[in-house]
Amino acid sequence: MGNPILVELTRGARRESMHTGAIAVAAADGSLVGALGGVEQPIFPRSAIKPLQALPLLQTGAADRYAFGARELALACGSHAGTPEHTAAVATMLAMAGLDASALGCGTQEPLDAAAARDLVRNGRTPTPLNHNCSGKHAGMLATALHMAEPIDSYWLPDHPVQLRIQATLEDMTGQRLGAEMRGIDGCSVPNWAVPLTRLARAFARFVSGEGVSGERADACRRLAQSCWDEPRLVAGHGRLDTRALASLPGKVLIKSGAEGVHCGGFPELGLGFALKIDDGSKRAADLVAANLVSELYPEAAHVLLPQASLTNFRGLTVGEIRAAAALTSFLPRLR
Amino acid sequence: MGNPILVELTRGARRESMHTGAIAVAAADGSLVGALGGVEQPIFPRSAIKPLQALPLLQTGAADRYAFGARELALACGSHAGTPEHTAAVATMLAMAGLDASALGCGTQEPLDAAAARDLVRNGRTPTPLNHNCSGKHAGMLATALHMAEPIDSYWLPDHPVQLRIQATLEDMTGQRLGAEMRGIDGCSVPNWAVPLTRLARAFARFVSGEGVSGERADACRRLAQSCWDEPRLVAGHGRLDTRALASLPGKVLIKSGAEGVHCGGFPELGLGFALKIDDGSKRAADLVAANLVSELYPEAAHVLLPQASLTNFRGLTVGEIRAAAALTSFLPRLR
Repeated sequence: MGNPILVELTRGARRESMHTGAIAVAAADGSLVGALGGVEQPIFPRSAIKPLQALPLLQTGAADRYAFGARELALACGSHAGTPEHTAAVATMLAMAGLDASALGCGTQEPLDAAAARDLVRNGRTPTPLNHNCSGKHAGMLATALHMAEPIDSYWLPDHPVQLRIQATLEDMTGQRLGAEMRGIDGCSVPNWAVPLTRLARAFARFVSGEGVSGERADACRRLAQSCWDEPRLVAGHGRLDTRALASLPGKVLIKSGAEGVHCGGFPELGLGFALKIDDGSKRAADLVAANLVSELYPEAAHVLLPQASLTNFRGLTVGEIRAAAALTSFLPRLR
Repeated sequence: MGNPILVELTRGARRESMHTGAIAVAAADGSLVGALGGVEQPIFPRSAIKPLQALPLLQTGAADRYAFGARELALACGSHAGTPEHTAAVATMLAMAGLDASALGCGTQEPLDAAAARDLVRNGRTPTPLNHNCSGKHAGMLATALHMAEPIDSYWLPDHPVQLRIQATLEDMTGQRLGAEMRGIDGCSVPNWAVPLTRLARAFARFVSGEGVSGERADACRRLAQSCWDEPRLVAGHGRLDTRALASLPGKVLIKSGAEGVHCGGFPELGLGFALKIDDGSKRAADLVAANLVSELYPEAAHVLLPQASLTNFRGLTVGEIRAAAALTSFLPRLR
């Protein structure tokens, strides 16, 4: 009944901890190429659907109106690390639309990048909404509201046209009706909807292949994906999995993480999308499953994506391993 | 076959993530008063057995030789937060034995306390082994080695008399033979052994009750427990669950957390011990299960121990809840 163990941590000769979860790989027509665990169970994709949420930014004409290029579109699709490079880029994006950081409704978050967080403390500064990992997405939402002459102080509320437009886009791309009973509020305060992994995988297959998508939307999908490949550091940050995968496999892998153990993405050459959720919300496990999936399909990137299996302690001694568990290692080769 | 869901997180009207695990509550004779999940599965207790690991410090006479009082014994049982208060207390403990921080073999760790970690950065300093949460335990091991005229540079290795003495103590208290196949290396580099939850619960029942324990060892157990109640801030730190529980229920609850989702402890008035493990290693879940267990038996402390159920986001909006799941809420009342 429960989901299979996807990741395990060992200590000495024994398993110490483990992570269960589910993963779906689908084609644009919704056919399942691979499924492990309860893939029909709705899950909150959180930030993993930012590329889908960015579609109206292009389709309304807002991105062109404000001359957004690859950097701004990558930020709109991304969960950046809050470094000075990221905050400066978001500030520029806001300025291109005639806005500033005071318009951001995402709240304030410490930089995800540990060195950037330490630098703030060292310099006696506190984080601002620009440091929030979602500030690029919010800048895109603000630009859309401004372009459409909609109120910009309430763009994050569920009944604002910006969010209704995103909701309709998600419904179309996932093929799933998104009722209020499936709605949650995300960490950055915009709506997020619970959707089955199968539907998320299908949406990303459509996103990267353009199959079953109108021409205008397919163009928008292509521009967003290309922007992520052109500016992978703005989608996440130095050293982070999404950035490493986008940078090492441009045109081949679109990938986006979400809070509470989610990853979504797609493989344009294969016409496939994927979505995975770790039941307990663990990032260490979600990253490892996503890295193993991508490395299975593109073994040439494995050395960049897969972490060292060995776990070391505070003295640097090897104490165990973190690794894909049996259910995952037998599932993945069937995708090739 | 899998363990039951003990903790769940919701978003909107739906469950977003969940944590499975097992919990055992036992008497000193080993009889199980309550069991949920796979309680016979060996788990690594990690720092949750520090009170047991501290017994030889007293029983060899080392603690008295160096005039260790409640503060030093609490540090030996604790996983402190690495604040200046903690590092100064460990430095004093080492000095009482004629040692200094250079003897510590635990490695270097940032303070667990976020404010203390920020202060280090702000002051341009880097962490030292004194900041390591295990430095008090290591100071006790060093004092024991010195008192016994054993080498002090290798006290953390599995075949050193200090560790062999601890191994024998654990075998006696848990009633479990600890072979090398059950051994792992802990984060601080000393050995740690996988033991079933039932045996850990029994060991803590014996620890807090003195039942089935030699008079000399029972005295040592009593002194260690009393030290934790006298100096609860040195066992963990301001705001942390173990400190709050020890401070609010002195003489009633001994409790100690361990890495990767473990909690052990005992209830002297009831003659019971407990041990729990979250399968995925989650601290948020282990703390919540332990807080619910203690609050069930001592409802007067619930307001101090149980966190607010509601989860808020970066804007301060309520987005969901973290709460005990059905299996746990139906299990706990049967313990009363």
